Amino acid sequence: MFVRHERDAVPADLAGEEGIRGVELLPLITNKDGARTFAMRLFRLEPAGHTPYHAHPWEHEVFVVRGSGELIGENGTLPLEEGSAAYVHPGEKHRFRAGDRGMVFICCVPNPSP
Amino acid sequence: MFVRHERDAVPADLAGEEGIRGVELLPLITNKDGARTFAMRLFRLEPAGHTPYHAHPWEHEVFVVRGSGELIGENGTLPLEEGSAAYVHPGEKHRFRAGDRGMVFICCVPNPSP
Repeated sequence: MFVRHERDAVPADLAGEEGIRGVELLPLITNKDGARTFAMRLFRLEPAGHTPYHAHPWEHEVFVVRGSGELIGENGTLPLEEGSAAYVHPGEKHRFRAGDRGMVFICCVPNPSP
Repeated sequence: MFVRHERDAVPADLAGEEGIRGVELLPLITNKDGARTFAMRLFRLEPAGHTPYHAHPWEHEVFVVRGSGELIGENGTLPLEEGSAAYVHPGEKHRFRAGDRGMVFICCVPNPSP
């Protein structure tokens, strides 16, 4: 077992990522730690920051820790606030966008199959 | 995709669980929602509340949302505070215990194989 505080996590390099603005991605628990099934990352979005509008073959499980924003999909926009959990199915187009105060959320994803 | 706030989650029935004190378990995203790989739950521990001291064949990935406490294992105790991520390997004995202000954390676990 181990404990890793968000202040000690090393931000991922997002240079060259398209459609992204004001996002910091902090890996907290990954397959490099021996986590075999899924990974946990922390996203910090500046006010009005957003992730790309995209789809991929894996799901997202999200929990909003601080701030607020929205989850944008093909069929509309869902509000997010502190205490909101959000699920994105594999293949669904989605974007996370922060409101005026920014938004910090946990986002867990399955690890690639071995 | 969907959003479910913690205030709308239905607490799990923990009656009969041994070694547990002052714990509320709120399933946020489960296989009933179509989440195929892993589940996300929120744990609310009262001050000095704790989970059982036990081991199981699956891992835990935890993030402390509010409050503080500790993660107790066979080789010692690790402090937890807001912003701490914690990983428990499959098979490791562990207990989460809240401090004086209680502790709220996300705990993700793999779903049973289909």
